[in-house]
Amino acid sequence: MRIDVLTLFPELVTVPMGLSMMGRAQEKGALDLQVHDLREHGLGKHRHVDDTPYGGGQGMVIRPEPVFEALDRIDTPQARMIYMSPAGRRFDQATARRLAAEPHLIFLSGHYEGIDHRIIEHWVDEEISLGDYVLTNGAIAAVVVMDAIVRLLPGVLGDEMSAVEESFGESGLLEAPQYTKPAEYRGLKVPDTLLSGNHAKIAAWRAEQALERTRANRPDLLPPSSR
Amino acid sequence: MRIDVLTLFPELVTVPMGLSMMGRAQEKGALDLQVHDLREHGLGKHRHVDDTPYGGGQGMVIRPEPVFEALDRIDTPQARMIYMSPAGRRFDQATARRLAAEPHLIFLSGHYEGIDHRIIEHWVDEEISLGDYVLTNGAIAAVVVMDAIVRLLPGVLGDEMSAVEESFGESGLLEAPQYTKPAEYRGLKVPDTLLSGNHAKIAAWRAEQALERTRANRPDLLPPSSR
Repeated sequence: MRIDVLTLFPELVTVPMGLSMMGRAQEKGALDLQVHDLREHGLGKHRHVDDTPYGGGQGMVIRPEPVFEALDRIDTPQARMIYMSPAGRRFDQATARRLAAEPHLIFLSGHYEGIDHRIIEHWVDEEISLGDYVLTNGAIAAVVVMDAIVRLLPGVLGDEMSAVEESFGESGLLEAPQYTKPAEYRGLKVPDTLLSGNHAKIAAWRAEQALERTRANRPDLLPPSSR
Repeated sequence: MRIDVLTLFPELVTVPMGLSMMGRAQEKGALDLQVHDLREHGLGKHRHVDDTPYGGGQGMVIRPEPVFEALDRIDTPQARMIYMSPAGRRFDQATARRLAAEPHLIFLSGHYEGIDHRIIEHWVDEEISLGDYVLTNGAIAAVVVMDAIVRLLPGVLGDEMSAVEESFGESGLLEAPQYTKPAEYRGLKVPDTLLSGNHAKIAAWRAEQALERTRANRPDLLPPSSR
């Protein structure tokens, strides 16, 4: 998959996307990531990219020219363009799966400013929001969405990890608590059941714990009768 | 506000938190951010921090010792400790406001592994999820939550920005489209109303557009009768 990101803060994207699993996805060739600094297409000596809003109001708005000119060079007939915005549709795992099947994504992220709506109308295929909260920083939101998408690409997660997705995505419950060594630490013990070696009991304990945790943290995921 | 972050990937936190508004929040003294590498408290020559799960299963689980030992040094009576997890409660603007009033937050983030549940039971005050999607990377999720919180601290946003929060948080609608110069670009024009100078007409146009956009992208924010 190819991903292009247009941002005023390229480091906010290149650094996290260069580490750990996202870095390995690029080394393996599963992800071809290109990050573009919008300021390179800024106007005049000071490379201005924003101006005051028409009709009045507070804050600055990114002008059309820097974005149009950057996109002239990177848009492809296959590209799907995403604008990260609190006004977008809320991102979820189904959207991650759908976008993971695309050959080319382009992310545009604002940075506390808005952007001229002609950019959205002319270029943007979908507006995505991380959730119901306000950030200073659309580039970090784009990194979150890319992480969720890229981990689904073939070959990026090892086999041992693929199950994690399913336990969240398919059962519809949160995961049961996990424990590892040592069996006792500072007087705190791992539940006996997990040490018992009795696989049926362990499975039953986990199912019960998953339900209890879902009830406590996310009752909205349960059918009304189980809340 | 003081924030401590415990992570296996310190750069994933220090780089984005050092740039732009988050960097300025630290320069101004509004935020005292300390990032701790969990691997410094790893076991043995190779500084292992994880092991296989008791009771069987895939993936690795972070052991209690590295986290307990790191927290021995940084926990305070005032600290509120947050674990970033898809099993947590969903983050929203009300949670951002509530946490912005705390004097000391500690963020613990996993990194595709789970963590030993004794850490959660013994230390964690709340588990927070960014949304209904799976990430490889809890550190990036912590950065998102910190960004949403820190921008609410006194003195971090300039006066000109404070309104942005209110237009999202109070009206309950998404923002109307924004436009800036030039009035025409590649044949695409700014709506006449915004150029009219008629403030009453502009306000009416914006209210109508905000409603239309909310209906298209986030009908769940509207009362059933307006959808």
